[in-house]
Amino acid sequence: MTTSPNLQDSSDAGCLYGVGTGPGDPELLTLKAARLIAESPVVAYFCRRGGRGQARAIVDAHLGAGQREMPLEYPVTNEIPHGSDEYRSRIEQFFDAAAEQLAAELGAGRSVVVLNEGDPFFYGSFMHVYLRLKERFPTRIVPGVTSMMASAAQLPTPLTMRDDLLTVIPGTMPIDDLRQALQGTDAAVIMKVGTHRDAVVGVLRELGLDERAWYVERASTPEERVLPLAAIPEQVPYFSMIVIPGRGVRR
Amino acid sequence: MTTSPNLQDSSDAGCLYGVGTGPGDPELLTLKAARLIAESPVVAYFCRRGGRGQARAIVDAHLGAGQREMPLEYPVTNEIPHGSDEYRSRIEQFFDAAAEQLAAELGAGRSVVVLNEGDPFFYGSFMHVYLRLKERFPTRIVPGVTSMMASAAQLPTPLTMRDDLLTVIPGTMPIDDLRQALQGTDAAVIMKVGTHRDAVVGVLRELGLDERAWYVERASTPEERVLPLAAIPEQVPYFSMIVIPGRGVRR
Ligand SMILES: C[S@@+](CC[C@H](N)C(=O)[O-])C[C@H]1O[C@@H](n2cnc3c(N)ncnc32)[C@H](O)[C@@H]1O
Ligand SMILES: C[S@@+](CC[C@H](N)C(=O)[O-])C[C@H]1O[C@@H](n2cnc3c(N)ncnc32)[C@H](O)[C@@H]1O
Repeated sequence: MTTSPNLQDSSDAGCLYGVGTGPGDPELLTLKAARLIAESPVVAYFCRRGGRGQARAIVDAHLGAGQREMPLEYPVTNEIPHGSDEYRSRIEQFFDAAAEQLAAELGAGRSVVVLNEGDPFFYGSFMHVYLRLKERFPTRIVPGVTSMMASAAQLPTPLTMRDDLLTVIPGTMPIDDLRQALQGTDAAVIMKVGTHRDAVVGVLRELGLDERAWYVERASTPEERVLPLAAIPEQVPYFSMIVIPGRGVRR
Repeated sequence: MTTSPNLQDSSDAGCLYGVGTGPGDPELLTLKAARLIAESPVVAYFCRRGGRGQARAIVDAHLGAGQREMPLEYPVTNEIPHGSDEYRSRIEQFFDAAAEQLAAELGAGRSVVVLNEGDPFFYGSFMHVYLRLKERFPTRIVPGVTSMMASAAQLPTPLTMRDDLLTVIPGTMPIDDLRQALQGTDAAVIMKVGTHRDAVVGVLRELGLDERAWYVERASTPEERVLPLAAIPEQVPYFSMIVIPGRGVRR
């Protein structure tokens, strides 16, 4: 019994699958993702022009010659300031076009797997096409191991225990919101640190949270780095986060 | 390069593995978990006396005749009020004894896989033996798909998008803390609702969050139920949660 629109039978033709590939280690793919990827006539994924993208790289071993790949290439936008109206409208146009490419397959009765690094419903890029197509086609989400849990797995204490409250914070938040979110929680994960590195580290120091915080880069890949916050690099790459494990409070 | 104590080589003898089994669907096991479980000489898991426990049931297909199983049976404590000092001390004694049973294997150079439903570091029972043994033996955590992401996967919108803040709340929290946590967030997940059902639902209504909230029971299993909060059953089982998806705020 369910009222969810996501529960179409998995054998439906013309179904849009959002499939989580896990955080980087190809072995952190689920059995279900591996099967659906291997069975799907069309496999789509977001990538930079000329690149393949992290999600596509993760599932390499499961793709065969008979399958059609559909790279959805982000437009090059280096000439436009990010965050500007023009940038946003260019990106929205790109997602519109990507959704129509997928719709052409789905409308013809072919199911499509859209790969998504980590989990599709946890800040996943899949959402951009999902929201455009979910009223028109059957959809199904296959959850994956998140980068949050893969990063936490490398630390000496659990992310959350007992009655710990956990807050997941995009590093892109204004600094006052970030401070408030950190003050009210036991455990925290700060995603998308990127260019906000200095501001984020500043707030962690101010709140005395820096002693408990860890920096994790490219979790579960051969390039993984795990460092106490004090040793965070000056420049941090896209695939990195800060994790503050809880202490297992009882309330 | 790493400073984490969790990065021993996976071929180490006498290593304590905390392995996430995912939320219920045996296909949501990772390839890595399936391999480690199949290879491990000893596989341990928590369960009720006479039962096998959810984690053991999930991995059934991967266990062979040559492997030793080590059920760690919770003591029957129906006669003692839960939350009392006596209850706590009985449970602590049980975890001490379970840790010593594992230590005997690890000390003899045999690796042990301890199964954990979902992810071991996300409110996992594994932590009770992990914290007792991590200074004495090499350890390794294999992250899994959490029940949170499996529940979110059944809903019509992503759990988090763009700059959404996500708060994960144990339903066991005092009601004022619960209210405060819900007020400060965009998306929320309330775990361990159980006996706190009425109080939790009351706060959600008071804050006008009930319209956006979903109830998910036994996500990813054949008994799964997904309902708008308005239709939440009077009694909710242990394997259930409330999910409030974010709306993709931009900040
Ligand atoms: C758009 S979000 C995608 C999250 C993904 N859907 C998931 O479930 O983990 C991108 C952010 O995830 C984090 N991330 C993704 N993969 C990572 C990894 N392997 N190690 C560390 N952080 C990672 C980084 O904070 C990055 O900025
Ligand atoms: C002790 S926590 C364990 C969480 C687990 N380690 C994980 O990663 O999902 C137990 C709580 O997880 C939630 N839970 C676990 N499995 C679930 C499922 N299949 N469906 C819904 N909720 C589940 C319930 O809220 C339950 O009270």
